Amino acid sequence: MHSAFAGVDLGGTSIKCALGTAEGELLIERSIPTDSHFGPTDVLKRIGDTINWLTAESGLKPQRLGMGVPGLVDLTRGVTRFLPNLTGHWRDVPAADMLSSQVGCPVALLNDVRTATLGELAFGHGREGGGKLSMVFMAIGTGIGGGVVMDGKLRLGPLGAAGEIGHMTILPDGPLCGCGNHGCLETLASGTAIAAEGVRLVLMGLAPILREHVHGEPALITARTVAEAADAGDTACFDAIQGAARWLGIGVANLVTGVHPDLIVIGGGVSRIGQVLIERVREEVHRRVRMFPPETVRVEGSLVGDRAGILGAVALAARGLS
Amino acid sequence: MHSAFAGVDLGGTSIKCALGTAEGELLIERSIPTDSHFGPTDVLKRIGDTINWLTAESGLKPQRLGMGVPGLVDLTRGVTRFLPNLTGHWRDVPAADMLSSQVGCPVALLNDVRTATLGELAFGHGREGGGKLSMVFMAIGTGIGGGVVMDGKLRLGPLGAAGEIGHMTILPDGPLCGCGNHGCLETLASGTAIAAEGVRLVLMGLAPILREHVHGEPALITARTVAEAADAGDTACFDAIQGAARWLGIGVANLVTGVHPDLIVIGGGVSRIGQVLIERVREEVHRRVRMFPPETVRVEGSLVGDRAGILGAVALAARGLS
Repeated sequence: MHSAFAGVDLGGTSIKCALGTAEGELLIERSIPTDSHFGPTDVLKRIGDTINWLTAESGLKPQRLGMGVPGLVDLTRGVTRFLPNLTGHWRDVPAADMLSSQVGCPVALLNDVRTATLGELAFGHGREGGGKLSMVFMAIGTGIGGGVVMDGKLRLGPLGAAGEIGHMTILPDGPLCGCGNHGCLETLASGTAIAAEGVRLVLMGLAPILREHVHGEPALITARTVAEAADAGDTACFDAIQGAARWLGIGVANLVTGVHPDLIVIGGGVSRIGQVLIERVREEVHRRVRMFPPETVRVEGSLVGDRAGILGAVALAARGLS
Repeated sequence: MHSAFAGVDLGGTSIKCALGTAEGELLIERSIPTDSHFGPTDVLKRIGDTINWLTAESGLKPQRLGMGVPGLVDLTRGVTRFLPNLTGHWRDVPAADMLSSQVGCPVALLNDVRTATLGELAFGHGREGGGKLSMVFMAIGTGIGGGVVMDGKLRLGPLGAAGEIGHMTILPDGPLCGCGNHGCLETLASGTAIAAEGVRLVLMGLAPILREHVHGEPALITARTVAEAADAGDTACFDAIQGAARWLGIGVANLVTGVHPDLIVIGGGVSRIGQVLIERVREEVHRRVRMFPPETVRVEGSLVGDRAGILGAVALAARGLS
């Protein structure tokens, strides 16, 4: 049997499993749904079964397994602390040990967005830096998460939770956030925030193209439909996208001012809106960061895109935390 | 002759020079005014003369000299890039070489606030962390500067300018800043901002105690007089101080959310307002940072206070950049 590294990207709706190489080549993959009837034990059992199936199918033996999970983990003990979006919330589940005994190799856990940051670091923009790149990775989807890499090393902080940049206050008296604060970046520029603005525009009769696009059903509005309507000439939707990008730019500018990374990478589902979003973020960053020459402040889209999470999980298995 | 380390804290109004030990004991010191008629050559000549005088006087021979300067420097070459508050602006002045040839030992340059951060790291709160502390140091004075320490190491960034936290955008459409941006923390919570708010309050007849305190002369209002009037019962001045602390808290909260340091240290002249300021900052940080347990988010006043700059310069000489 050849050896490989196993990666798992555990999400609220699906679980991606793969075997890959230390160079980031995914050799075999399988995605399974996250069954909301299942608690931690059953979910971990299904993950283990899937990895074992991939092993049997491919003849590749995983040396280590890395798993990105949506929430807080105790990195040292391989225990989940709290995964708010999963059934049962996974409080203090020894997931690494449970999975390890099933798949027969060591298992490392990490927060999913920090895992995606490792994916970008190992196999995306990170390859530019000769191991010394300082980078902030932002994942803009339903919420906004992030990861901070300083001199080639992922910044964890005391709880492995550094990089919660969706919860920076951008508008001090802004909208209430799920975290309890007001005006978090996530309340202004996440996919959810863009969709909610789309709903508002349709309900107020301000976005006729978007309205037509979703057949008059506000419940069908997503960040993607807002972006599509903007592309099709809906000026209110265009303004909604530009507005979200402006807020993102302010958040990015503040990180740049604070730690001056070499590069900011915009990833996550909302980044698929594309260059119009990235360019507006970049413009706002250059408008706000006046202390450093603009050429030292790069803002780019992700090079690994949707694969950041699963690639990061394989990178976690193959290389550990850098 | 015993050996020692020389430190210089070059400011816009005065230049502190000292010889000290690697343990942060200052053995002999002298402060000279920064003569605004002098350009770089004459200022450096006077600094060299002062160090040589301290050497002769004390019988201590400096092994290395560290100097904090108000602006951007090229760390590798020991050249000043731009010191906006000094006569002649010091563009591309090879200050390290010029001073080195006069005092007969190697010279290292660093931005003054990053130097003060080294002072806190080497001889203040940094002694707690066993060399691995992650800390953000904020110097709140005429402006707001800062320094970021990750895992015991000062974060420099590509230009040695990481930590310009006074220029984070806190209020997106806020007041114009000297840097060209709007709503920078410095426009809202620096000593200058507090003084300007005091002037406004007096001109609008809203701060009778402050008015009396400065004998009706708005030009005499400083952050300190505003704080004193607040202490004496001027409610508008009290609100001004609390308001500034709230903005500081938002800036601190955003740094905490982004990089989750072990500790935030509030230093600089404005921090002398004391515990009422620190406590309001802490309260706002705890209100805003909901993702991490409050006990992992410490906000403290500086342990080295006014001595941060000169102690940091001695630390730079004795230990280099960590």
